[in-house]
Amino acid sequence: MATNRVARLARRPRGMVTRGDFDIRDEPLAEPADGEFRVRVSHVSIDPAMRGWMNDARSYAAPVKLGDVMRALAVGHVEASRHRAFKDGDAVSGIFGVQRYAISDGSGVSRVDETLAPMPTWLGGLGMPGLTAYFGLYDVARPEAGETVVVSAASGAVGQVVGQLAKMKGCRAVGIAGGPEKCRMVTEEFGFDAAVDYRAGDLAGQLEAACPSGIDVDFENVGGEVFDTVLAHMNPFGRIALCGLISSYNATEVPAGPANIRYVLTMRLRMQGFIVSDFAARYGEAIGALSGWVKEDRLRFVTDVREGGVDAYPDVLNLLYTSGNRGKLVLAL
Amino acid sequence: MATNRVARLARRPRGMVTRGDFDIRDEPLAEPADGEFRVRVSHVSIDPAMRGWMNDARSYAAPVKLGDVMRALAVGHVEASRHRAFKDGDAVSGIFGVQRYAISDGSGVSRVDETLAPMPTWLGGLGMPGLTAYFGLYDVARPEAGETVVVSAASGAVGQVVGQLAKMKGCRAVGIAGGPEKCRMVTEEFGFDAAVDYRAGDLAGQLEAACPSGIDVDFENVGGEVFDTVLAHMNPFGRIALCGLISSYNATEVPAGPANIRYVLTMRLRMQGFIVSDFAARYGEAIGALSGWVKEDRLRFVTDVREGGVDAYPDVLNLLYTSGNRGKLVLAL
Repeated sequence: MATNRVARLARRPRGMVTRGDFDIRDEPLAEPADGEFRVRVSHVSIDPAMRGWMNDARSYAAPVKLGDVMRALAVGHVEASRHRAFKDGDAVSGIFGVQRYAISDGSGVSRVDETLAPMPTWLGGLGMPGLTAYFGLYDVARPEAGETVVVSAASGAVGQVVGQLAKMKGCRAVGIAGGPEKCRMVTEEFGFDAAVDYRAGDLAGQLEAACPSGIDVDFENVGGEVFDTVLAHMNPFGRIALCGLISSYNATEVPAGPANIRYVLTMRLRMQGFIVSDFAARYGEAIGALSGWVKEDRLRFVTDVREGGVDAYPDVLNLLYTSGNRGKLVLAL
Repeated sequence: MATNRVARLARRPRGMVTRGDFDIRDEPLAEPADGEFRVRVSHVSIDPAMRGWMNDARSYAAPVKLGDVMRALAVGHVEASRHRAFKDGDAVSGIFGVQRYAISDGSGVSRVDETLAPMPTWLGGLGMPGLTAYFGLYDVARPEAGETVVVSAASGAVGQVVGQLAKMKGCRAVGIAGGPEKCRMVTEEFGFDAAVDYRAGDLAGQLEAACPSGIDVDFENVGGEVFDTVLAHMNPFGRIALCGLISSYNATEVPAGPANIRYVLTMRLRMQGFIVSDFAARYGEAIGALSGWVKEDRLRFVTDVREGGVDAYPDVLNLLYTSGNRGKLVLAL
C-alpha cells in the first residue's frame, strides 16, 4: 500500500529546532474526494518565517497546532484529480506542508510554468521571496532613482531580488552578507554596486565606504547589530522596509531591541513592517513583472536545493539560521 | 550700567545636567544695530529636546557649541527696536536662548497675541508643543474616527494637546502618565477617555482594560518599557508617531532599544519619526486652527511656570526628566 511521508509538529521548539520537535512518519496515502486533487510534492520552501509559525505567540498567522503537518509553501504536480480546474500533471504551488503528498481543493493554489523556470525557482524569485522583494521595495520602501538602498541578508532568497529591483529603479544597491563567497555572489551574480561583509569587522567603516552618500532605504531582513549599524547611517527622511528579523527568531530570551532607535526620531525615518500576503490581490501584477524580467534576462536567481526528503527538514531549516545556505533554500523530496 | 543674565554651555553634560555644565553670568547689555531689536525675555520654554542639543552627536539640529548661549525657545517684548517690522512693546516668540535679553534681526520671530492667551501659553499649546501635537497626530499618525489613540507623557506639553486633538477627530484617547494626580489631569482636565498610571504596576493589564479594541495609534513621547508594552498591544496596520524618547535622554550608556520591535513586522506597523520644524511652512495653518479651538473653548492647556530666572535653568530642566513638572514647563525670568 502506498504511503505518505509527513512531518508533524510534535512540540514547540526552544531555540533552534531539533529532530525531536517533529513527528516524522509514514501515513497512509489519502485519496482526493470530489472537487479535490492530490499533489505529489517535489520541493518544499524553507523559509525564515517557519520558526515563528511554530511559536504559540500573537502574530500575523495562527501558530501551527501541535500534531498538524508543518506548514510550508511547496511545489509539485497534480495527480488523481477530481477537480475540474486542475488536471493530472499540472505543475502547481501552494501551502502543501512538509509532506510527500498533499490533498487540496485548489484554495490558494497557483499554476506554475516549468517552461519559464524550473520548479524550485517558483519557490524563490518567482515565488513568495520574489513577491516579498517586489512589494517590500516598490510599495513599502519606495526608493527614488539615485538613492542608496541597503539590503541585509543580500544573497538570500529575498535579498538577491531586492538588489536587482533596486538597480532597475536606478538606485545604488549595497548588500550586506556574511563571508567573502556570499559577498562575491552579491556583486558578481546579482549586480549590486557593493557588498559589505558583516563578519569582516568594522561594519560601520565598511558601510560608510560603500554608501558615500549615506543610506536612503534599508530593506531589513536580519535585525540585531547589523540593523543598529545601518540605523546610525540613515539619511534624513530615509525609509526602512522591515521584512524580517532572522537574527532573533531562535532567541530563547527576549532579544535586545535596536539600540539606535533614536535615529528614527532624529532623522525622521519611516520604518514599516509588512507581510507579503497583505498584497495577495496584486500577486498577478508582480509575477507578470518578475516573469517578464526573467524572460529578458534582467533578473537572475540562485536557488540552493538540498536533498534528503521530509526527514531532513529540521536540519535543512537550521541552515537558514546558521547562514549555511547559498541563495534561496529549498528541500527536494 | 544695565546687564544681561546669560546661561552659556560650559561643558557637555553626562547624564542629568548640573549647574557646573553652564556658565551663568552677567554680561553687558548689547544694543541693537540697524535692522535689529532687543527682546526682553519674559519666559523661556523648557523642552525635553534641550538635553539632546547639548550632546556632540549627529542629529536634526547642530549641537549647541561650548561657550554659546544655551539654545531655547522663549517669549518676550520688543524694546530699543531699530527694525521696521517690529516696534517697542510688541510681544514676540523666537529662539532667544536662556538669557534675560536677546538681540534679534527678526529671523524666525513670530508675533504673539496676548489678548488670546497669556505669554507662557505661546510656548505651550499655541507654541512648539501644540504644533508638534497637531502635525504629529494629523499628518504623521493620521488616525481615523473610531480608532484608539494612546499617548505617553499624556499630561505633558505635547501629550495634553494630542489627546484633545484625538477626541476632536472622533477617536478614543488613552493617556499614559505617572501617578494619580497626572492621571486625574489627563481625564478631568484634558478629557481623555481613560488614563493609565505606569507607576501603578501591571501596565499591560491596565492598557488592555483601557483599550478594549487594541491600539491603532501610538503617539510616543517616552520610549523604554512603556513603549515596549504599547508595541505588544498594537493592532495590525497601526501607526506610531515617534515624537520623543525622553526616558533615554540622560542615559550615560547606550540605552536598550524596543525589545518588542518584532510587532512592527508581524502587525505591519508604520513607525515614523518627525521633527516639528519640518512643518514650518504650515505653522500658520496650525496656529490658526489651534487658536480657533481655544476661542471656542474646545482646547485647554496647563502650563507649569517656575520662578527663579536664568540661574534656575539647570534645576528646572531636570524636572522634566524626573517627572517633576505638571503640564508644559516654562521658566519665568
